[in-house]
Amino acid sequence: MYASLADLARIGGGADGGVTRVAWSPELFDAYAWAGERMRTMGLEVEIDSAGNLLGRWSAGPVGSSAVVVGSHLDTVPSGGRFDGALGVVAAIHAVRVLKEEGFEPDRPLWIVAFMDEEGTRFNAALFGSRAFTGESLTGLGDRMGTDGVSLREAMAAAGYELDRAGEACRVGRVGAYLELHIEQGPVLESEGVEIGVVTSIVGLRGYRVRLTGEANHAGTTPMGLRRDALAGAARIALELREAARARAETTANVGRIAVEPGGANVVPGLADFTIDVRATTVEGLGELEHLVVESVARIAAEEGLGPDVQQTFALDPLELDPALVSAVERAAAEEGASAMRLPSGAGHDAMIVGRHVPAAMLFVPSHRGISHSPEEYSSPEHVELGMRVLARVLRSTLRTDG
Amino acid sequence: MYASLADLARIGGGADGGVTRVAWSPELFDAYAWAGERMRTMGLEVEIDSAGNLLGRWSAGPVGSSAVVVGSHLDTVPSGGRFDGALGVVAAIHAVRVLKEEGFEPDRPLWIVAFMDEEGTRFNAALFGSRAFTGESLTGLGDRMGTDGVSLREAMAAAGYELDRAGEACRVGRVGAYLELHIEQGPVLESEGVEIGVVTSIVGLRGYRVRLTGEANHAGTTPMGLRRDALAGAARIALELREAARARAETTANVGRIAVEPGGANVVPGLADFTIDVRATTVEGLGELEHLVVESVARIAAEEGLGPDVQQTFALDPLELDPALVSAVERAAAEEGASAMRLPSGAGHDAMIVGRHVPAAMLFVPSHRGISHSPEEYSSPEHVELGMRVLARVLRSTLRTDG
Repeated sequence: MYASLADLARIGGGADGGVTRVAWSPELFDAYAWAGERMRTMGLEVEIDSAGNLLGRWSAGPVGSSAVVVGSHLDTVPSGGRFDGALGVVAAIHAVRVLKEEGFEPDRPLWIVAFMDEEGTRFNAALFGSRAFTGESLTGLGDRMGTDGVSLREAMAAAGYELDRAGEACRVGRVGAYLELHIEQGPVLESEGVEIGVVTSIVGLRGYRVRLTGEANHAGTTPMGLRRDALAGAARIALELREAARARAETTANVGRIAVEPGGANVVPGLADFTIDVRATTVEGLGELEHLVVESVARIAAEEGLGPDVQQTFALDPLELDPALVSAVERAAAEEGASAMRLPSGAGHDAMIVGRHVPAAMLFVPSHRGISHSPEEYSSPEHVELGMRVLARVLRSTLRTDG
Repeated sequence: MYASLADLARIGGGADGGVTRVAWSPELFDAYAWAGERMRTMGLEVEIDSAGNLLGRWSAGPVGSSAVVVGSHLDTVPSGGRFDGALGVVAAIHAVRVLKEEGFEPDRPLWIVAFMDEEGTRFNAALFGSRAFTGESLTGLGDRMGTDGVSLREAMAAAGYELDRAGEACRVGRVGAYLELHIEQGPVLESEGVEIGVVTSIVGLRGYRVRLTGEANHAGTTPMGLRRDALAGAARIALELREAARARAETTANVGRIAVEPGGANVVPGLADFTIDVRATTVEGLGELEHLVVESVARIAAEEGLGPDVQQTFALDPLELDPALVSAVERAAAEEGASAMRLPSGAGHDAMIVGRHVPAAMLFVPSHRGISHSPEEYSSPEHVELGMRVLARVLRSTLRTDG
């Protein structure tokens, strides 16, 4: 299992120890070939659908039985780790191998999936494959330009795919359950000393770009009372949102990017341009944060004499995972003798999209120091193996009963 | 007077209405030729000294009489205004012309000066000419690289000057008083509706570069309580210094430049790199601010779990201008029928250097909206003319008595 992850990490592996397999790249399709070969060897029927999702199907059960889908994604951020996404696909392959080797006979179909472009780094079109798979709108994504100056439509064409046919990948009507094993990408499990995270919900997210316009002035000749300092406004907003997030459960707020102009040490900043990222696990909680962002920017800008401009750049609603499947994961962890805790996922995942349409569950294994999207991403062999065994148990139970 | 300023602004004038005459450039020497020609026409003896200062000398009085020096600088920031520096030189020429035309006979020498490289934009060697003129150390300046990849030493050589001979420009021993008319570069006179600013002191300044190191983490998966957010620390420091400056008279604090890394909207900032600029008009006030910068960075970094690194990048002590000369300026304004107020200068000037060695005074005329270092820099024809007339009155009084 750990050897498989190391083997896969060579595809797109860089000198810094990071792995780079961006959406629609030759490296990603090489990883598909690697995984497809392993699925074929186990007797699965392998295809890449019209949205670039890799599927391996184990047909079983009466005609029309809904499938249990298990997987994650094989694309990475630039110079990412070897676990994010890859673990969910490799663990699915190993879990199915365990089932095959023990002669397990499913009552319904099982599909292993690797969704296209979960990360979204290249085209800012995150979760493309799972959106297509579930019939969600892809409108407007085709013309998004990649960081390399190639549009999504062009990158698909170069790989032999047509954007206009991606919608044909919609198969959600034939799916009854979705399961995804992933690394936590956060520090909670490690800091709590717990082996398995049973994910209860995936946070919703609102992303903003804020521009505050004040007046650039000489920092020595402009009295403090006559300044319209855009950075001071941004600093107050960042700290106020932090306090609000600290005061609420399962809530975060982040200002991750900021630029000020003109940027001279002796010039009062006349413009501050920054991002806000707020997350909450409930619709109500997210609504409160949404209101707070708009209200605090308006109020602080008025107090500071700044012109505010707030644009919402991203919106994903929170998702409660399926209670029955969540309980099934928790039971499987207990039967495997693993310590487990319920927790929300602070990061987005394909399960967030698929879970809007069919019952879904996720399980996490610990991430060392919570580091992800980095060559330093690390989960131990023991945790990775344990996660795979828990996943195999969940598969056994879900494949026995038609959801 | 206003026509002279417009004429001079054509030298180095750009399409955006700005003026660019950086230190040691052909444009600056063209401006020297322009001013030198006007001084020669009035009978002054003109030279450019070994530090690149333009001098026009009106010899008078007994042998060994100390000179009254009046002027400013002709270099500009890139795309600067037509008043900053130039006004002080042009007004000195016009004031001397008034004296010549009325048949005034000075009891001591008068020198008009345009100091080399007051601005310091090109080589970060601000106040080069006045430092050389007063015998202050020029050590280390020669190897400073210009923004165009040419060192100061090379730029001097290209203009026909030797860095190693710049020290020969020291003439402070022959000077008894220094007078400088300048635009305010701040909004106080305009907002108070006052025509002439009588400068009492020039603020001292401490510049810092601060780097706070936290930990870059996923903004969704890292609970608020486990973050080490470098931007939050920087925001707290910026706001705390602002409050401290607001609570004190004649004091400023500014964070004008900030960068955070890694700079992803969904990543908690692991590094914040920013500048601090604090100014005060007294040694005690500046000492308090100096202590506060160091203390607040250390305390807030500790509270936020950040690694602090503070470097002092710039230090200039405050200067009290000469009380007798300041009173002479105030009297001259009253005699001219101008409204006047005492105020400190928040910006540095050649008078800050010269005033450490000989009695010095400055007067300001209003800057529209306080804008400077910009093509939008503006002072009205009436204010400019009034400033010149007040300057001529101060010259009449100081040239009559040997200081």
